[in-house]
Amino acid sequence: MATTWKDFLDQTEKPDKFDEKSKEIIEFVNFQLRSKRHIVLVTSGGTTVPLESKTVRFLDNFSVGSRGALSTEYFLKRGYAVIFLTRNRGLRPFLRHVPKTNILDLLTITDSKDVKVKPEYEQKILQVLQTYQEIKNENLLLTVEFQTLSDYLQLLKACSVALQPAGNQAVLYLAAAVSDFYIPKDLMPEHKIQSSGGPLKLSLQLVPKMLEPLVKEWVPDAFVVSFKLETDKDLLISKALQAIDKYQHQIVIANLLETRKKEIFVVTKETQDHVSLSDADIKNGKEIEELIIDCLVEHHHQFCSVENV
Amino acid sequence: MATTWKDFLDQTEKPDKFDEKSKEIIEFVNFQLRSKRHIVLVTSGGTTVPLESKTVRFLDNFSVGSRGALSTEYFLKRGYAVIFLTRNRGLRPFLRHVPKTNILDLLTITDSKDVKVKPEYEQKILQVLQTYQEIKNENLLLTVEFQTLSDYLQLLKACSVALQPAGNQAVLYLAAAVSDFYIPKDLMPEHKIQSSGGPLKLSLQLVPKMLEPLVKEWVPDAFVVSFKLETDKDLLISKALQAIDKYQHQIVIANLLETRKKEIFVVTKETQDHVSLSDADIKNGKEIEELIIDCLVEHHHQFCSVENV
Repeated sequence: MATTWKDFLDQTEKPDKFDEKSKEIIEFVNFQLRSKRHIVLVTSGGTTVPLESKTVRFLDNFSVGSRGALSTEYFLKRGYAVIFLTRNRGLRPFLRHVPKTNILDLLTITDSKDVKVKPEYEQKILQVLQTYQEIKNENLLLTVEFQTLSDYLQLLKACSVALQPAGNQAVLYLAAAVSDFYIPKDLMPEHKIQSSGGPLKLSLQLVPKMLEPLVKEWVPDAFVVSFKLETDKDLLISKALQAIDKYQHQIVIANLLETRKKEIFVVTKETQDHVSLSDADIKNGKEIEELIIDCLVEHHHQFCSVENV
Repeated sequence: MATTWKDFLDQTEKPDKFDEKSKEIIEFVNFQLRSKRHIVLVTSGGTTVPLESKTVRFLDNFSVGSRGALSTEYFLKRGYAVIFLTRNRGLRPFLRHVPKTNILDLLTITDSKDVKVKPEYEQKILQVLQTYQEIKNENLLLTVEFQTLSDYLQLLKACSVALQPAGNQAVLYLAAAVSDFYIPKDLMPEHKIQSSGGPLKLSLQLVPKMLEPLVKEWVPDAFVVSFKLETDKDLLISKALQAIDKYQHQIVIANLLETRKKEIFVVTKETQDHVSLSDADIKNGKEIEELIIDCLVEHHHQFCSVENV
C-alpha cells in the first residue's frame, strides 16, 4: 500500500537547522503581514532521492530552477514579498543577469591594487546590484535551501503552515520539480551498491502527493498554483484538469518540456488560457515568466476581491 | 551480455561541440609539449545517467568535484599544466577561495558609482585573482565540461588520445565519480515516466570499464591514477588491489566516503601508503590533496626516470 503523507513526514528526518529555518520563515511572514504585503512562496529546482542511506547515488531531475528564479523577480516587481524555497545549487534571482559564471573572470586589479568589476561588465552589474540591494534592504526576499525530497517536503509544510495567518493574501507557486518516486529508508541498502553484483534493479515507491494536505489542511485559504510538466502534448491539458479536480486548488500551469520557455497554459476549473511569447517578444528578450506572473496576479486579485465580498 | 567499450562509444552520441573541444585539447597539449611541461588530465565531478530519452529524470551521484578542483590547484603549484575535465556545474579551482557564493553579496557600489569588491573581502580576493590571472596568462589550465556519462566517456577518450604524444610525461588523474550503471538507448522510454503507473521498476546495465582501453590502447605510456571510493572499510584495499591487477596501471587512490577529506591510501602493485592529515594539519587548514599530489609527483618522477634508464 502507498504511504500516506502523514507517515512520510513522520518517518523522514527533518533537515539540518530545521527549527532555525522555521523560525526565520515565521518572522519573515509576520514582517510582511505588518507591512500589509502579499506574500508568495515560490518553490524552485529539483529534489534528489537517495538510493543508499550513506548516499553515493541519487535520482535527480533536469530542473535548474529557471522558472522559479525568474518568477521570483517578477513577483517582486509586482510588489509581492517572496519566500524562495530553492534547491541548494539552483539558479538564483538576479544572479542570472551577471554575465560570467566565474566571478574571477569578472574582476580586474587596478594599479592601486583595488579589485573592481571589469569596465565592460560594470554597467550591467551596477543595474542588477542596485535592484538586489534594494530588495535586501527592504527585507522582501527570504531564501530557504533544500536538497533532498524529504528536506523539501518538510520545509514546504513549514512554509505553508507559516503562511496560514496570511489567508487569501498568500500565494503558493509550486514550481519545484518534485520527484514522484523514492526508496523508503527500510528498503534502502546501507552501503554503496556494488557494480560487481551485475545489472542493477531498483524498485521505487510513489511519493504521496502533498498538494492534498497543503490545500485542505495547511493553507486552506491561500491561492495555490501548481505545475504540470509533460513531454507528451496529448496528455497535457487532461492531466492539468485532473489535478484541479482532485486537489480543488486554484490554478495549474501546464507546460511541455520542449516549449516551456515560450508557451504555457493557465488552467483553472473554468478557463484555459494559452500564454505565449510572440516572435517579437522573443526578439526583445521578453520572458514568459513576466506574462505568467501578470496573469496570476490578476487571478489572485480577483480571488481576494471575490472572497472579500 | 555486457556491452563492450567499443560498442558503448559507437552507440552513444558525441557531446555538443565535440570537434571544437577536441581541437582545443590537442592545441593545449601541443603548447605544453613545446614548453616541455608535464601535463595532467584531472577528471572531476559526477556523471549523470538519463532515465528517459527526452530527459526529465537522471541518476547522479554526490560528487561536487572538490577532489578534482583542489588537486588541480596543487598540480599547478607543482608546475604541471592541467586539462580539467569537469562536470558542468562542478566546483572550480580557485573559485572556492571566494568567500561568498553569490557574487552580488561580494560587491558594493561606491559614491562615484564604481562597482568594487567590499573592503572586508578585498585582500582575500586579490590573492586568488592574482594566481588565477597568472595561470590564465601562461595558458596552464584548460577547462573542458561534461554532464552525462556518455559525454564524459567520449571526452575522456579524446583527452587521452591527445595526450599520447606526451608519453610518460602525461599523468591521468581520474577523480571523476563515473556511474557504474546506465540505461541503453534502446531500453529507454521516450517520454516522462508516469507516476500513475504505480511504483517504478528500473533495470540498469553495467557501464563498460574504460580504464581498460585507456591503459592498453589510448595512452599506453602515461602514468595513470584511478580512484576507488567505498563506504565499507573492509572492501577498500582489496578492491584497490583488484583494480591494479586487472588494469595494470600505476596507482589507485583508495578512500572511504566518510573520511575522504582526511585520509586516503596510495596503492601500487608493490606498496600501500597511508596518507593522512594530522590534527595540527587540520587546524592549520592543510588539505589532503596537497599531500596526495606531493606523493604522486614523487611517484611520477620515479616512473619517468626508471623508464628513461
